[in-house]
Amino acid sequence: MATTSPRGLRTTLPARVYTDPSWFALEMERVFARMWVAVGRADALRGAGAFIRRDLAGASVLIVNGSDGVIRAFHNVCRHRGTQLCSAHDGAFRGSIQCPYHAWTYGLDGQLLAAPQMDEVDGFDRSEHPLRPMACAVWDGHVFINLGDAPEPLASQLGDLPARFAPWRMQDLSLAKRIEYDIATNWKLVVQNYNECLHCPVIHPLLNQMHHYLGAANVPSTGTYCGGAMGFKDGVETLSTDGKRRRAFLPGLSAADRALVNYFAIYPNFLLTLHPDYMMTITIWPVDPGRTRLIAEWHFHPAEMAKPDFVCADAIEFWDRTNREDWAISEQSYQGISSRGYQPGPYSERETQLWEFDQFVLARMRHGDAETPR
Amino acid sequence: MATTSPRGLRTTLPARVYTDPSWFALEMERVFARMWVAVGRADALRGAGAFIRRDLAGASVLIVNGSDGVIRAFHNVCRHRGTQLCSAHDGAFRGSIQCPYHAWTYGLDGQLLAAPQMDEVDGFDRSEHPLRPMACAVWDGHVFINLGDAPEPLASQLGDLPARFAPWRMQDLSLAKRIEYDIATNWKLVVQNYNECLHCPVIHPLLNQMHHYLGAANVPSTGTYCGGAMGFKDGVETLSTDGKRRRAFLPGLSAADRALVNYFAIYPNFLLTLHPDYMMTITIWPVDPGRTRLIAEWHFHPAEMAKPDFVCADAIEFWDRTNREDWAISEQSYQGISSRGYQPGPYSERETQLWEFDQFVLARMRHGDAETPR
Amino acid sequence: MATTSPRGLRTTLPARVYTDPSWFALEMERVFARMWVAVGRADALRGAGAFIRRDLAGASVLIVNGSDGVIRAFHNVCRHRGTQLCSAHDGAFRGSIQCPYHAWTYGLDGQLLAAPQMDEVDGFDRSEHPLRPMACAVWDGHVFINLGDAPEPLASQLGDLPARFAPWRMQDLSLAKRIEYDIATNWKLVVQNYNECLHCPVIHPLLNQMHHYLGAANVPSTGTYCGGAMGFKDGVETLSTDGKRRRAFLPGLSAADRALVNYFAIYPNFLLTLHPDYMMTITIWPVDPGRTRLIAEWHFHPAEMAKPDFVCADAIEFWDRTNREDWAISEQSYQGISSRGYQPGPYSERETQLWEFDQFVLARMRHGDAETPR
Repeated sequence: MATTSPRGLRTTLPARVYTDPSWFALEMERVFARMWVAVGRADALRGAGAFIRRDLAGASVLIVNGSDGVIRAFHNVCRHRGTQLCSAHDGAFRGSIQCPYHAWTYGLDGQLLAAPQMDEVDGFDRSEHPLRPMACAVWDGHVFINLGDAPEPLASQLGDLPARFAPWRMQDLSLAKRIEYDIATNWKLVVQNYNECLHCPVIHPLLNQMHHYLGAANVPSTGTYCGGAMGFKDGVETLSTDGKRRRAFLPGLSAADRALVNYFAIYPNFLLTLHPDYMMTITIWPVDPGRTRLIAEWHFHPAEMAKPDFVCADAIEFWDRTNREDWAISEQSYQGISSRGYQPGPYSERETQLWEFDQFVLARMRHGDAETPR
Repeated sequence: MATTSPRGLRTTLPARVYTDPSWFALEMERVFARMWVAVGRADALRGAGAFIRRDLAGASVLIVNGSDGVIRAFHNVCRHRGTQLCSAHDGAFRGSIQCPYHAWTYGLDGQLLAAPQMDEVDGFDRSEHPLRPMACAVWDGHVFINLGDAPEPLASQLGDLPARFAPWRMQDLSLAKRIEYDIATNWKLVVQNYNECLHCPVIHPLLNQMHHYLGAANVPSTGTYCGGAMGFKDGVETLSTDGKRRRAFLPGLSAADRALVNYFAIYPNFLLTLHPDYMMTITIWPVDPGRTRLIAEWHFHPAEMAKPDFVCADAIEFWDRTNREDWAISEQSYQGISSRGYQPGPYSERETQLWEFDQFVLARMRHGDAETPR
Repeated sequence: MATTSPRGLRTTLPARVYTDPSWFALEMERVFARMWVAVGRADALRGAGAFIRRDLAGASVLIVNGSDGVIRAFHNVCRHRGTQLCSAHDGAFRGSIQCPYHAWTYGLDGQLLAAPQMDEVDGFDRSEHPLRPMACAVWDGHVFINLGDAPEPLASQLGDLPARFAPWRMQDLSLAKRIEYDIATNWKLVVQNYNECLHCPVIHPLLNQMHHYLGAANVPSTGTYCGGAMGFKDGVETLSTDGKRRRAFLPGLSAADRALVNYFAIYPNFLLTLHPDYMMTITIWPVDPGRTRLIAEWHFHPAEMAKPDFVCADAIEFWDRTNREDWAISEQSYQGISSRGYQPGPYSERETQLWEFDQFVLARMRHGDAETPR
């Protein structure tokens, strides 16, 4: 699949990569079901039995905090007749997980504790019917799952990111606000939109007052992430409705870190935006080729949140507005790519990360393996 | 297609049997278009021209009472340019059936009576263009149709049921109430839910006050039905909101019959529930793999209905509530079976009828023929 | 594909021609993407930058009036990353067409004028990235486009129509009213419905007071259109709610032309209805096999429209009512044809034009070429 033109220009991908249901199904298998995907924050799973539910690549998944404080992930499906165990998106189980149909009951660790009428069945052994588990791991407060059979460690996928972002002490931050979006575009267009600011002058009048749109300093892309940092225009202290910072710097940041916003797209579904005084996370949930759900969360330092005069609406409103601008143009982009007149077009030098992301997708689709595109 | 585990446990069916549109399409051909399916009651077709419309396996069907008192079934399609003759779900034709487009007119027996502008066409013969008929037969007031070309007699499919239920004199009963449900589940999960009461303690708090959930006495399943009877808990006389019976016993019932509710799933689409004092019928109308329409009707003895103090809300409310509990868990069951984590699970001994129903479906799908699974 | 019965009767088409998504997709390619299709009126494109947008055969198309007064058609897709340039259905560009994502800017003639950050890219040449054009031509005020690579001239497709309708001076007429309809039927059933009046006595009580339903004088069909004229019943002067004519005759009409309504279906998507005092146009926009959008417009002579006592509600209300009667029966026709009971049925002599239209479709589907079916 060509991604350069006869003249050597790097070009966007063919339409079917965005619109074909078969391609999408294979992406779910080879990208989303084999890589570690971010599902939320350990912060949301405080206490034994606390859970969140996520739907991914045809799977419904329960991520549950155990009695032992270990976070585990299971398929949200009873081993008896396949009933979905839990319809809620989050909540807390009280000590065990019971199927609402015939009361098969599982421990928070997934073991089958009770199966009415089954113990008398010849050949039935409770220990063989636990909830089906999947890999689950935590990086600095971010919870990831992996649907694959024998996944590489999360650390392999993350590479140097844990060291890079250690100063932000992300595990200490707490959720202040969640906004969910349901948008009519392909998931990859959300990642691509995040990875360039060429559109900022046209699309984001407010954001464009904060950053210089050509001012990104990107790190070399790897096979599992891309990203970089952008400084502020004069007089701007953080990304908020007026550019003013109303919270202390996150502890641990150097003077240099305090003057930047880091934007990292951690493949396949995690957009991590680190500000001097707060963190925004966006997880991406593909529904079908032309539909994507997004969960955006704003996280602050608990010491700030405990202050009587803590405010965060300035940061949330700034990004909610900016996000919606991005979602709208990403939807319009999908409209064009879906139409007969679309042909791959040329990337500028300012869109190198997009081309690299495209090569990541193509490599995973070819081999199902990680490859570094450079 | 395995329906037992390596250990010999009888297991539920693979997911695609519930979710695959191709499987569903073949089910419509091999199960619904070759078997007799229940469409309603002769009671609803009183008088020449009375009709009901049913949509089944891609067909739209008119079931019409003729001037001669014979109930016939036709495709609801004009032989001229294919217009749907009738959009209503029931009603009465006045002596003939006229297409609303160009006024081709058919007798209640389906014969083409008039075709404007056609008689002058060389080679056209009205007698060759009647409404396309299909087999139609009545058992004890229940009307069945068969879309197949040369179906076996209805009696062959019913087996011993006519003799078994003769005492209930079902043909005498009259409709008091109809409720239609449109639910997000596979049609087979409705049949399976009907065929076991293991879920009753968990799902049905009210019903569970009436029956002992392990108290079913089932008859041996055949290739075309399964069922059994359940007695009442002490002090319960029938299934009503409070267990009291407000109507005389149906005439003809023995003392034993008066103490039971009979639950029979007559494949593929008829759930017949016989109480000491009334009958509930449910017909099942698959729409797509994950969507099913249901028509529930409550029928009582006319002598009771004629009484000034006749009431039936106690029976209708009881079952409407219980039905909705069943539909909700059947939808949640479909959710789980549709997800990536589903694997076939083990049936208990109390779910033997479900496994037998599964084998009925598989046998029909393999051969298109009836087979007895035992 | 047989379109006659063993007895030689001409019959309607098989169901899949109406219902199969694959057939529909091929129709879009071989019929709609290779023929000239009517998109609207030059009248709607007055002034440099005026545009209308049309969606056809998977393409989104901008039809734009240039600074030079030439009407051109382009794919509504940016050559950079494929963004849809314009979401509006009509409007006016101010001097240029700018992509809302990264501000690539095109002239009204489609040339790429500016592409931020691209000029420094080695191998990039702006002249190689104009908006992708398609053929566009105007007949007597009617604008047509052709998505094909090297289309025959519009005049070839129109044949003798320009000469035939020259007296109506259609290019002089102005739009008074537009009504859009979105209906649940196949696009061909709309054309077929238009091409016969056998249904008029049954479907159109009002129209049937104006014309004698067997009174059409049809011209011989060609491979690209069919049509004819109908006279009025006594006392009727035009098609309006009461048959009275409230506007002067269109200038240029002979006494004979003043006594007729011309009904021409210009394949594939243009229904042209010419009255003594006004013109109704309907363009047909297939969405999927069972869904079609229709744009109906009423056009009058500007001299009449300039009069203080000009009225047109009588003509619009007449046709809006009559159109809705046609759409409803066309939807019911699609319902029947979509059902299992449908088989091709016989056409009468009064439906010869329908059979000829069917042969036009079949010929285009076989060869992608025009063929005359007679």
